Amino acid sequence: MNLQSLNTPAALIDVTRMNHNILRMQQRLNALGVAFRPHVKTSKCQPVVQAQLTAGAQGITVSTLKEAEQFFAAGIRDIVYAVGIAPAKLPQALALRRAGCDLKLVTDNPAGVDAIVAFGREHDEVFEVWIEIDVDGHRSGIPPEDVALLRVATALVNGGMRLGGVIAHAGSSYEYDTPEALVQIAEQERAGTVRAAQRLRDAGLPCEVVSVGSTPTALAAEHLDGVTEVRAGVYVFFDLVMHNVGVSTTSEIALSVLTTVVGHQREKGWVVVDAGWMAMSRDRGTQRQKRDFGYGLVCTENGEVLDGYLMTGANQEHGIVSHDGSPDADIEKRFPIGMRLRILPNHACATGAQYPEYVAVQPDGELTSWPRFHGW
Amino acid sequence: MNLQSLNTPAALIDVTRMNHNILRMQQRLNALGVAFRPHVKTSKCQPVVQAQLTAGAQGITVSTLKEAEQFFAAGIRDIVYAVGIAPAKLPQALALRRAGCDLKLVTDNPAGVDAIVAFGREHDEVFEVWIEIDVDGHRSGIPPEDVALLRVATALVNGGMRLGGVIAHAGSSYEYDTPEALVQIAEQERAGTVRAAQRLRDAGLPCEVVSVGSTPTALAAEHLDGVTEVRAGVYVFFDLVMHNVGVSTTSEIALSVLTTVVGHQREKGWVVVDAGWMAMSRDRGTQRQKRDFGYGLVCTENGEVLDGYLMTGANQEHGIVSHDGSPDADIEKRFPIGMRLRILPNHACATGAQYPEYVAVQPDGELTSWPRFHGW
Repeated sequence: MNLQSLNTPAALIDVTRMNHNILRMQQRLNALGVAFRPHVKTSKCQPVVQAQLTAGAQGITVSTLKEAEQFFAAGIRDIVYAVGIAPAKLPQALALRRAGCDLKLVTDNPAGVDAIVAFGREHDEVFEVWIEIDVDGHRSGIPPEDVALLRVATALVNGGMRLGGVIAHAGSSYEYDTPEALVQIAEQERAGTVRAAQRLRDAGLPCEVVSVGSTPTALAAEHLDGVTEVRAGVYVFFDLVMHNVGVSTTSEIALSVLTTVVGHQREKGWVVVDAGWMAMSRDRGTQRQKRDFGYGLVCTENGEVLDGYLMTGANQEHGIVSHDGSPDADIEKRFPIGMRLRILPNHACATGAQYPEYVAVQPDGELTSWPRFHGW
Repeated sequence: MNLQSLNTPAALIDVTRMNHNILRMQQRLNALGVAFRPHVKTSKCQPVVQAQLTAGAQGITVSTLKEAEQFFAAGIRDIVYAVGIAPAKLPQALALRRAGCDLKLVTDNPAGVDAIVAFGREHDEVFEVWIEIDVDGHRSGIPPEDVALLRVATALVNGGMRLGGVIAHAGSSYEYDTPEALVQIAEQERAGTVRAAQRLRDAGLPCEVVSVGSTPTALAAEHLDGVTEVRAGVYVFFDLVMHNVGVSTTSEIALSVLTTVVGHQREKGWVVVDAGWMAMSRDRGTQRQKRDFGYGLVCTENGEVLDGYLMTGANQEHGIVSHDGSPDADIEKRFPIGMRLRILPNHACATGAQYPEYVAVQPDGELTSWPRFHGW
């Protein structure tokens, strides 16, 4: 298997870049004195997660119970399922715990607590639950000062469950693109979550874990006093959205899509390639950022950025590559039929999900197939 | 297995609606006197394609050679691969033909022809090739009046390959939303493709097949004189993009995502559900249409539209459902924790691709798992 003969489109992982990204994040969090629990929803891939654990990560974060099952089967016990638990998923969570998985659940509401308590009592299981804190109005969670926080926590403890801690995610950090704004949202995430933990402890309730994180805030935080662990996912590959946020260079982006030129529309300055939105995903995350990269930034087969060339359009299995600005009159000569290109994606989590496997490009150039799973 | 206990998110196919859609298209094309070759990229699912063939479809259209391999293995021989062939894929195409698959290739450029001819001669294989015609400047193909048309066709025939016909897709039909405009683009697609066929025949070249199609033009064409076959894909499920185009009601949309309520943000009028963009896809195809449905239109568990409720935001595994307009103050009561909803998608091809299997809801209410494949 080599890049010249590989079937296209293919999702390439540049292992040198990935290892650099893993080391960068782990060293930073080591220096900040907190544990690191990577979010594996980005890769859903054993060798990637193994590299994160080998570098020093402690446990993992998952976005689905299928991820929990798959990674538990691969030997990882310490798992937090970071989406508010749906009552109907409790039997699946119980099965994991009964099999020996140290699975932690998350909730932010009384009905969720009632369901966990009722099901836990019925099955004689003490679920460990972390309470989700809303630090930026982005999605879910209880605001740190909200009366509901103590109510939910007390109901959990009185119901016989284990209150393990608090968990927050400043998802709005993706919307910023200056170092100052990122430092500020990181501090907001830290302070809000630590404050929620303090309120629980002041009320005599346990709160061992204070878990925060997103790739931008993890890389921007000036200190993490009071925090016990950080979560981050997309940093392992980075992508053009993170590049626009300002936390990675394009040469740190470890995931790309290998594609082949199959046609041209010379008068329009278009190259037609065999990677469309099925290969890139429909994610247009850079559309409202400081630079819109279309469906991706074009590189040579070896990964050097061809500045100014973007995938500007995409159908299911057709991509249109063109010069960002005036049409390139030499487009047919520059990109002949059969030529291979790499496209850096807007959003690594979404692009990876389009593939049953990655092709890992090892530091020595060898190619290895790394399976990933999908579905729920 | 029943809707109440099904793991969420799940991709449901309403089989009654699907069968209605299949019958509607087949009857229409029967009446227009043309053969129908459905595009299976929408479903990538054997039972769906079997239903299309049983209703009268003749052969299939694929967007990847993996689709060709999978459906050939299921017994379908007559297949056109409707993406311009990349030279490196010729060995895969040859293997299919040698195994007995009547696979037709497509190209629109001299370099593609040269590669097919050279590879065909080297392996003593007469590939059947259809020339792609550009009828609307949408993507690829040779304009009907372009000098390149006869050059490419002649090179194919002189090279010993079989020139099977011409093929066009008016992809721009998705951009219209009035009956008049759809009739016009359908006629443009028909007339341009028939004209290209005529030019070939006038030059003494063979052109047996005249293949056109897209769901909107197939449903809008007033006549199809000179056309031999039509292709269409998304009609089998329809979706909100097609609804905005004006070719389906919401009650004809056969694909939906079943999801569970996991939280609320009462002050914002938000319901948090366990279907995010991973479950819906990142497709925001209605964003620039006459009605923007966000990430999808909310229905009850049984599929009745809850008018005015949309999935207005999505993270990977979290969706935000809210009232399209003023926030709903009764959001917690109306959508309690654990409640199940169905979400109609923007784009059925993209949403289906997020799942390893569909759950078919049979006319009698029974649920059946229908596997689908992904990747290349």
